[in-house]
Amino acid sequence: MNGYPTWYDPDDDRTALAAWSRLAEPVDDAAGAFVRRVGAAEALGYVLRGGGAGLAVASRWRARLPDLDPHRDLADLAAVGGRLVVPADDEWPLRLGDLEVPPLCLWVRGPLRLDTACNRAAAIVGARASTEYGVRVAAEFARRSAELGITVVSGAAYGIDAAAHAGALVARGATVAVLASGVDRAYPRGNEPLLDRIAAEGLVVSEVPPRSAPTRTRFVHRNRLIAALADATLVVEAGVRSGASITARHANKLNRPVGAVPGPITSPASAGCHRLLRDGCICVTSAEELAELVDPLGDAPAEQPLPLTSMDELTPLDLRVLDALPLGSTAGLHSLARVAGLDLPTLTAGLGRLELAGLAERGGGGWRRALTGGDT
Amino acid sequence: MNGYPTWYDPDDDRTALAAWSRLAEPVDDAAGAFVRRVGAAEALGYVLRGGGAGLAVASRWRARLPDLDPHRDLADLAAVGGRLVVPADDEWPLRLGDLEVPPLCLWVRGPLRLDTACNRAAAIVGARASTEYGVRVAAEFARRSAELGITVVSGAAYGIDAAAHAGALVARGATVAVLASGVDRAYPRGNEPLLDRIAAEGLVVSEVPPRSAPTRTRFVHRNRLIAALADATLVVEAGVRSGASITARHANKLNRPVGAVPGPITSPASAGCHRLLRDGCICVTSAEELAELVDPLGDAPAEQPLPLTSMDELTPLDLRVLDALPLGSTAGLHSLARVAGLDLPTLTAGLGRLELAGLAERGGGGWRRALTGGDT
Repeated sequence: MNGYPTWYDPDDDRTALAAWSRLAEPVDDAAGAFVRRVGAAEALGYVLRGGGAGLAVASRWRARLPDLDPHRDLADLAAVGGRLVVPADDEWPLRLGDLEVPPLCLWVRGPLRLDTACNRAAAIVGARASTEYGVRVAAEFARRSAELGITVVSGAAYGIDAAAHAGALVARGATVAVLASGVDRAYPRGNEPLLDRIAAEGLVVSEVPPRSAPTRTRFVHRNRLIAALADATLVVEAGVRSGASITARHANKLNRPVGAVPGPITSPASAGCHRLLRDGCICVTSAEELAELVDPLGDAPAEQPLPLTSMDELTPLDLRVLDALPLGSTAGLHSLARVAGLDLPTLTAGLGRLELAGLAERGGGGWRRALTGGDT
Repeated sequence: MNGYPTWYDPDDDRTALAAWSRLAEPVDDAAGAFVRRVGAAEALGYVLRGGGAGLAVASRWRARLPDLDPHRDLADLAAVGGRLVVPADDEWPLRLGDLEVPPLCLWVRGPLRLDTACNRAAAIVGARASTEYGVRVAAEFARRSAELGITVVSGAAYGIDAAAHAGALVARGATVAVLASGVDRAYPRGNEPLLDRIAAEGLVVSEVPPRSAPTRTRFVHRNRLIAALADATLVVEAGVRSGASITARHANKLNRPVGAVPGPITSPASAGCHRLLRDGCICVTSAEELAELVDPLGDAPAEQPLPLTSMDELTPLDLRVLDALPLGSTAGLHSLARVAGLDLPTLTAGLGRLELAGLAERGGGGWRRALTGGDT
């Protein structure tokens, strides 16, 4: 029929979107604009008909037509228990609309609903070349975030990413792995058991169809999805030029808060985090502080007020009286006035306040320091 | 003569200031205002005459008259080779005028001129309870700062302070120790050899007269002098409540920049630094970054521009071409266009740019990646 392939159905936008994600690489803004303007199926029909022969963009998509078979891609996805999620679906996270070039559709595996999973979510990302410190910190942040009901989004890479996913799984929390390859491909290979577990308990998500290889550009563009799916992004360890820094930049562009975990300045693995801190990102030292970024108005435990010792409530004048008080023996008022450099009324008023605070006590015709007072 | 002590000379403001620093504790704003209004000697005469019997402030100072002997204090200072520096002296650092309550005078030991020593100065301060990491970092910051011609100001306490002074001395740089006790008293005792060396090569400074004990309030007020003598303050390691945090607060109040050195979030010794970073202090990871705070317009080496690899200069389109290129074998144009998802004109333009950048090469009737290109 008119030279269309047998699978083409001008009323099936879902299959057409699957096809588009094969024809166009991520962040192909021309494809995105075309699909949004006329609809995925109609836009695809135009390309299939060989329309716009003079347009460079159209010839770019046509270069991949020989390999196009969306039914096979959808069958491959179904074979691993996955589903295609398109913008018209309830499950589509509306926050992806904040991106300059949102994905056309997402290939998804896992039992969670994508939109609700990302409702309160933190991206925890970082270097593959991580240290023991970074791995421990990432796992602990993720574990505690999960306990606080926060979904952990990351990229399933070795190092920090893997530790973040694993930490969330340990606490039986929700975790979302966003891949640069197809969701049927375990990449990196060594994280296959982890990815299997995420697919079984969380979500594995990709913008590119099954069997797609992770290329350099797909890694770069994948990072924008991590930033866009989460409310806030935390970089745990990163070199100065790293994928994690790119994710942080994307989050910043989306006006989502970016936190960085400090580390030793002697550790190159923390250099990217320190650069982010110098550039104005927020210093984050606990999952509670991360939760504040995810949900600034939420009931996440606020910064703990520090325990006040009675020492902290003293005025400078009272501290001077306290300094003048002997510890073992007692001292008379006139001697205390001289040592403290205070007149008698000021001194006795101060002694009264210190006595109330349990820091001074009378005895042997004078005053001494009570033993409850701490020491500097 | 009129009941004045024999040493009193109504024309000798210098001796009168020495006397005032015995009568009034640091940050006695009434004493400061009185001395500035009528002059040190005249104000002292008023107290000596027993004037203002109804004034609480005057009776506060009179409580210490029985012990007052400024000639003895000045002789004690001379015995350790020191000198009194007063606001009328050329050596007086004008920047002390930024303080709400400047010191009335300073008791000083050491061969440097105080004003020039503080001309480009960094306060490097921190916890007594420091870690090996903190001590190493403090010494290295101080050593390198000294090499950059920056004076290191600190408080001669155990831990970070001592490491900072020692680091500056190693590089034969200028260092200033500001004490809470008299400059003739080594406090803490264990730092006596260090203080001797600072007095011999740098400066030991105090607001309180010889023989004075370091009290809690004197420590607190001493910290404002450290902040005020330096152009910028760096906190290396500190607990959340610490003298170093007070110094940072003083520097902030003086509108002087405050830096904090990050450390592992698992180290309580860095908790105060991380708190400062969360409160907006600057993350400092090298002496060069500290030098920028000390001297923002100076010729201190600016942040090193990162070395650009040819990879970093590539457009996303060129990266896609690069991703499509095989490493060992070569690929033809049509195959490359399909893999990269690009039309032929875009592809060949990209290949040309990659060839120029040394990242792609022709061979065997096709193209392949040149081996100079790095890998992610």
